[in-house]
Amino acid sequence: MSSRLSNKAKGNNIRKDRRSGDNSNAKSSSGHGSKDASVLALRYSKSYEGKIQVVPKVPISSLNDFSVWYTPGVAAVSLAVAKNKDLSFEYTNRWNNLCILTDGSRVLGLGDIGPEGSLPVMEGKALIYKYLGGVDAIPIPIDAHETEKIIEFATYIQPAFGAIHLEDIASPKCFEILDSLRKKLSVPVWHDDQQGTAGVILAALLNSLILTNRTLFDTKIVLFGAGAANIAAARLLIAAGAPAGNLIVVDSKGILYPERDDMDHMMLHNRWKYDLALTTNKSKISGDVTAAAKGADVLIAASTPGPNIISPATLRGMNENAILFALSNPVPEIWPDSARKAGVKIIATGRSDFSNQVNNSLLFPSIIRGVLDVRSKSIPDDVIIVAAQELAQYTNNQGNLNADHILPTMMDFDIYPLVAGAVGEKCVKMGISRKRLNRTEIEDRARSIIEHSRKMTSSLQASHLIQPLPAR
Amino acid sequence: MSSRLSNKAKGNNIRKDRRSGDNSNAKSSSGHGSKDASVLALRYSKSYEGKIQVVPKVPISSLNDFSVWYTPGVAAVSLAVAKNKDLSFEYTNRWNNLCILTDGSRVLGLGDIGPEGSLPVMEGKALIYKYLGGVDAIPIPIDAHETEKIIEFATYIQPAFGAIHLEDIASPKCFEILDSLRKKLSVPVWHDDQQGTAGVILAALLNSLILTNRTLFDTKIVLFGAGAANIAAARLLIAAGAPAGNLIVVDSKGILYPERDDMDHMMLHNRWKYDLALTTNKSKISGDVTAAAKGADVLIAASTPGPNIISPATLRGMNENAILFALSNPVPEIWPDSARKAGVKIIATGRSDFSNQVNNSLLFPSIIRGVLDVRSKSIPDDVIIVAAQELAQYTNNQGNLNADHILPTMMDFDIYPLVAGAVGEKCVKMGISRKRLNRTEIEDRARSIIEHSRKMTSSLQASHLIQPLPAR
Repeated sequence: MSSRLSNKAKGNNIRKDRRSGDNSNAKSSSGHGSKDASVLALRYSKSYEGKIQVVPKVPISSLNDFSVWYTPGVAAVSLAVAKNKDLSFEYTNRWNNLCILTDGSRVLGLGDIGPEGSLPVMEGKALIYKYLGGVDAIPIPIDAHETEKIIEFATYIQPAFGAIHLEDIASPKCFEILDSLRKKLSVPVWHDDQQGTAGVILAALLNSLILTNRTLFDTKIVLFGAGAANIAAARLLIAAGAPAGNLIVVDSKGILYPERDDMDHMMLHNRWKYDLALTTNKSKISGDVTAAAKGADVLIAASTPGPNIISPATLRGMNENAILFALSNPVPEIWPDSARKAGVKIIATGRSDFSNQVNNSLLFPSIIRGVLDVRSKSIPDDVIIVAAQELAQYTNNQGNLNADHILPTMMDFDIYPLVAGAVGEKCVKMGISRKRLNRTEIEDRARSIIEHSRKMTSSLQASHLIQPLPAR
Repeated sequence: MSSRLSNKAKGNNIRKDRRSGDNSNAKSSSGHGSKDASVLALRYSKSYEGKIQVVPKVPISSLNDFSVWYTPGVAAVSLAVAKNKDLSFEYTNRWNNLCILTDGSRVLGLGDIGPEGSLPVMEGKALIYKYLGGVDAIPIPIDAHETEKIIEFATYIQPAFGAIHLEDIASPKCFEILDSLRKKLSVPVWHDDQQGTAGVILAALLNSLILTNRTLFDTKIVLFGAGAANIAAARLLIAAGAPAGNLIVVDSKGILYPERDDMDHMMLHNRWKYDLALTTNKSKISGDVTAAAKGADVLIAASTPGPNIISPATLRGMNENAILFALSNPVPEIWPDSARKAGVKIIATGRSDFSNQVNNSLLFPSIIRGVLDVRSKSIPDDVIIVAAQELAQYTNNQGNLNADHILPTMMDFDIYPLVAGAVGEKCVKMGISRKRLNRTEIEDRARSIIEHSRKMTSSLQASHLIQPLPAR
């Protein structure tokens, strides 16, 4: 392990370990080795005492410098910003600051473990943001849990940030919070468990459809599980052109349809699910996931950790060349091998140790990079769709699109500036950006920011200002 | 200017430019050169686009590492913290995270310029925190202004931070906010404009008293101005042993005394000032600052930018070996030369281009360093007093205590670990720390953290990952 690092470490010579054979840490609690990752995570977290830190980005050489960076010089900068608030994006780091906001009410598969408990995850997210997207992300887990309080908090904290990333907030309150903040704030708001997951699902689906000669318009899609991920996925698929009637959503009580007993309760407590009950499932079938999957082309599961949540019999009822995304973590709803034996053609999971990982990290660093770089005021669905298309296109352009490779991995560093470019360009075209740049300018800027971020990490590692990992 | 930086730059070889002759940038709007600092500040702020950034503090060498820093490994860390919240100080960067919280309602001498306008100042503060104290400080200027909202916001944001630093919040609401949060939160709360200024005033006064053969117990002290700084100074002086009756506080309406017309209004709207009106000024004199200063030993002014706010005649009424702190910025209430001609023996100001700068930066980085390192739950007055004593003692121990050198400068790097050690030790003794370390352990840890922080800055400068300042 200690040989991983040396003084020669440079920005881009990271080993790209794509496949399970070389990826022992990433395995999970099903006996595939996540005990290892847990033990190491506890040990290393204790030893490093945090994953991110604040570092100056301006030179300091003498006491004089503080008279420019602080008083008296800073007064002129503050006055200029006070007169024109948009200058906060020019004169401070606001343009690159992201608030990672959570109440810790639905952290990973762990449930409501509270704000303190969520902090290790949020730090990990911030680490990924900086490393892959060059974004300065600040974990802000808060001790406020009511919908209105969280919305209020986000409106208060807006002035320091170029965007707000919501993370691990339980559904259904996350829907209300996202919808409300998207309307209220003048900076982009992103809920990764909704939009990030939905975006990567869409990208994976677009390439799966190409491989099986289908289009979004004529495909029967079942969404199993009706939490943040699948409700957002259903909404994004519809926005991307999938006819709502071709979708079937299944929650823990069965298929959604307008006559279900609990529609009144749903209308009051989860109007997002209620809307889907009204608009999807044009044949108005009822029943369980097996009934839903019968004759379906695609099954997208984001339900309950497996492995026995989806049975081979359910899958055998699907159409030829079936597509299955079994996204529960740490264990998919059915193991890929069993799904393959049941006749499924393309299988994706949430895990890095199988082919086709549906991984939010493929999108969030670059989408946020893109909206920050054009100072966008929001992230409409159309922007997420463009990002998903760019991600799908990338794999296709690489010439190795196949059933075991429908998406790049997060170490395909080229994707981030490309997606940022597509995202930024879309925001400019939609007239929601504060800055007008063309696609090449956005891409080049994104590439340079991300490379700088990785060089900084490598340089600090090379000089042992970031210590090498201890020997195992 | 560009020669300031070179590849040879190292952690501690900063030039210590102490005196005005070498300190052109630090001069102020009185025609002493702050125009220069303003022009440079605007230019450099635009060019660097922010003064601080987020940087990984753990090594990243391959995709594998994310399975430890993020899922699946991080789940074990989150679970451990959820079970024992204090572990958030061990397994994450919380132990070193400081929230710099402001509503921008009283920024420098600029008044209520709002949260966006305050951001350049808060970034400067965060820069100083990292550079002098090794503290990871996050600027959080908020768009909430009512006392209750600010208190609520601070209680919500607590889980990610080891301490909260209030900055540039208008008085009198800042008193209520500080008092309330000191009671409510389980992490230390610090209001720099109150406690920081009061602490450095106390340190400066302790050494001034030594030089003029006085003690705190038999000295007549006038406080001119009754905003955050002087009200806090009065309270701290009393806590440190100054008899309240020997103090006289003067606000814009004159001397405080129990029979003043506006006592009822004061009781309702500013009970901190009201309390001082009842307890100070044992002779119950009334009148203006000249009346107050007559026969006084010390005049501490934190009132209105000068230079003609205090007249030589006022100072001539003071006792022999008079002590004057004229702390308004950018221009002191009277120029030091004029005060000297009026017979004042020891003169301090808020400016770096005169002798004896009363500068909060001498205390806040080390006090916060100290409380963070023992995981203190609060910062009682006794801790601030110990810090002030340590700061005063340092100058005394250096053997060059004289009327033109009553305090060190912020580039006397030795003071920070020393004060942190004194602060941490006091917290442990008072039983308010989560961690028990002895003074040497605290000092050594503080020294190593601060040195690491400066080395990181130097290293990034040397490799041009922080660009040199452009040529003027």
